[in-house]
Amino acid sequence: MTEIKATPKRPPFVPPSSPASLVAAGRLRAAGVIAGIKASGRPDVALLVGDAAHACAAVFTKNAFAAAPVVVCREHLARTGGRVAAIVVNSGNANACTGERGIAHARAMCERTAALVGCEPAEVLVASTGVIGVPLPIDRVLEGIERAHAELGRDDAAAARFLAAIQTTDAFEKAWGEARDGLVCAGVAKGAGMIEPDMATMLAFVATNAGLDAEALRGAVGRVARASFNAVHVDSHASTNDSAFFLATGAAPHADRAAAIESMERVAHRLAWLIARDGEGATKVTTIDVRGAGSDAAAEDIARRVARSALVRTALFGNDPNWGRFVSAVGNSPVAGDASRLVCKVQGVLVFAGGEPASFDRAALAQAMAADDVRLELDLGKGAGGARVLTSDLGYRYVEVNAEYTT
Amino acid sequence: MTEIKATPKRPPFVPPSSPASLVAAGRLRAAGVIAGIKASGRPDVALLVGDAAHACAAVFTKNAFAAAPVVVCREHLARTGGRVAAIVVNSGNANACTGERGIAHARAMCERTAALVGCEPAEVLVASTGVIGVPLPIDRVLEGIERAHAELGRDDAAAARFLAAIQTTDAFEKAWGEARDGLVCAGVAKGAGMIEPDMATMLAFVATNAGLDAEALRGAVGRVARASFNAVHVDSHASTNDSAFFLATGAAPHADRAAAIESMERVAHRLAWLIARDGEGATKVTTIDVRGAGSDAAAEDIARRVARSALVRTALFGNDPNWGRFVSAVGNSPVAGDASRLVCKVQGVLVFAGGEPASFDRAALAQAMAADDVRLELDLGKGAGGARVLTSDLGYRYVEVNAEYTT
Repeated sequence: MTEIKATPKRPPFVPPSSPASLVAAGRLRAAGVIAGIKASGRPDVALLVGDAAHACAAVFTKNAFAAAPVVVCREHLARTGGRVAAIVVNSGNANACTGERGIAHARAMCERTAALVGCEPAEVLVASTGVIGVPLPIDRVLEGIERAHAELGRDDAAAARFLAAIQTTDAFEKAWGEARDGLVCAGVAKGAGMIEPDMATMLAFVATNAGLDAEALRGAVGRVARASFNAVHVDSHASTNDSAFFLATGAAPHADRAAAIESMERVAHRLAWLIARDGEGATKVTTIDVRGAGSDAAAEDIARRVARSALVRTALFGNDPNWGRFVSAVGNSPVAGDASRLVCKVQGVLVFAGGEPASFDRAALAQAMAADDVRLELDLGKGAGGARVLTSDLGYRYVEVNAEYTT
Repeated sequence: MTEIKATPKRPPFVPPSSPASLVAAGRLRAAGVIAGIKASGRPDVALLVGDAAHACAAVFTKNAFAAAPVVVCREHLARTGGRVAAIVVNSGNANACTGERGIAHARAMCERTAALVGCEPAEVLVASTGVIGVPLPIDRVLEGIERAHAELGRDDAAAARFLAAIQTTDAFEKAWGEARDGLVCAGVAKGAGMIEPDMATMLAFVATNAGLDAEALRGAVGRVARASFNAVHVDSHASTNDSAFFLATGAAPHADRAAAIESMERVAHRLAWLIARDGEGATKVTTIDVRGAGSDAAAEDIARRVARSALVRTALFGNDPNWGRFVSAVGNSPVAGDASRLVCKVQGVLVFAGGEPASFDRAALAQAMAADDVRLELDLGKGAGGARVLTSDLGYRYVEVNAEYTT
């Protein structure tokens, strides 16, 4: 086995500064504190509290072994019909695979928060991210919640502390917001791959000041998540803790509701892009657009197969316009259809059509692929089904981060 | 981004020497020649010819964009009902994504072979492996077939030349056979991951001297392939060219037929293990055994999800008994069931049961995982469904091999 080359040096990615912080949606206070869950001593308990109970909808991991906080959130949302007074978060410990004790700990987090805020425990939602299979140091967590409550603030600095306290192995903080004509939608997120010991997760918190009710939110978030957080594919592996929360504070009750949902979509998509960009060792985000499929479900099956192929992802890392890998990954789907109808483009350049390779400038396309954003378009020429998936590339650094946790 | 460590030095894997070569099944001649398809000048046309038309069954890729030779083989087997006088193979070019011209080339290979052998073109099967999307240099291929026919031999050296001529990026040659009490079953294979420019494939050729007819072979090969070649998971990516051919020469007409099929299973499994062992940059083969599932299909879904998780595969590379990744990969399946019933063992050591981590010696287990064979057992505690998948680990060398093909 030869020695391998060093990871190419690239300037570190600097995320754009967000025009609006999480609390810009109004009627929200935020905090983030050091509770001592993380050995690193970094912030690890975060709290978001509404001035009243706000409308809320959420989407959670489809992993069958959902973590305790996810189980408790589902129960609380079902009980309240989508009303939330506070969201409490800890990082450094996922409270997953922790059995009945884990459920009791997640409930205790909600109860302590409810007692401080003055609401029902069911009006509190909870999220955890970090190492799995280790019981929460619940005393520290509860003490952290008390301190976070005492430090709640309405300013951007408070929102920044919230964001800092939800991080695990994130290489950069993920925040994006929009504020236009009185309508605000802003969010923060954490996550990318799952890493032990900080076995991670994707968490997102998005708030708008529009006056959407819980039913309207529930009607929207499935579609919003499908085009954003659920479209991110990094590891072929969904975490036990993935959660995305969408709140409407009603601070701008007359704001256009359709516009609010559109804004939520853009914010969620931007956060999802940042999550994919922070895929362990990722050097770019690739957007895989499948069109012309027999159905949206067929398109999604194909997009996910392409996104999870290790051969596709290493080709993306290597800036290699290796259409054979893209095309044969499509063929891996039972709903791929006929190769002669497939049209494949990379960065807008036609590489395959009519069942045969197109002629293109390989060197120029390789150069075009060395971008922060790569677009892979696959048109099956069959129907009207479409889907989009975001994926990170697969490089040396991914292996390093994921294999070199020394036992 | 930091510089990464060099790939750990390990002694290269030396495959075991096979007790029986491909021609040991009798009534077969083999050849392998240099036809000039490969720029490297290595052997690239192989021919296997029966003394008569032998019974044959085959399994092919499920990739919807099957390569031209696969299309032609399916047609020929349907026409003859499973009778084959010769198999012609080229390496260095997959004849895939080559449109109508590719089909014509695959037919021309069969026709030329048939003319030399003196059989019907439909009694010839064809396989190709190598770069995709490039037309075959058909003149060289046909000339190579003529030379291979002139050099056919019945000895082990001829079988070795056949094997050499089906290689692409293989790190070692894959051959295994059994000869016991007059019953012979022997095979050769090539492949592992798919690599551009030698975009590869899995090809296997297995022959027994038993007197099985085509119907009996067809009845067996589905099960044989399921437990061997179809159980290999390296890339989350099936090639356009994967083909496994099973022949019965009838040279030992009184050999026990059930024993012959069992021998075929063992040979196929051994070849599949060698293919997984040669996964690009692989350092070991992991056998994922799922039991206690609601059905075999459910078990297979789970085994494949575990096998394709990049997090699982990097943990295997790192000798990391990171049960959280294994368990949550199971949870990714919609048929995972209840985590509290899941039992997970690594190298026979219990790591997770009853919804909670088991206590085990992490350092000792990490050491036990640094083996050529790693076993991951997952019992769902639900039903009688089971499945086995073989996977290679994911290390630096995989990225190197797959990303550093410089365009």
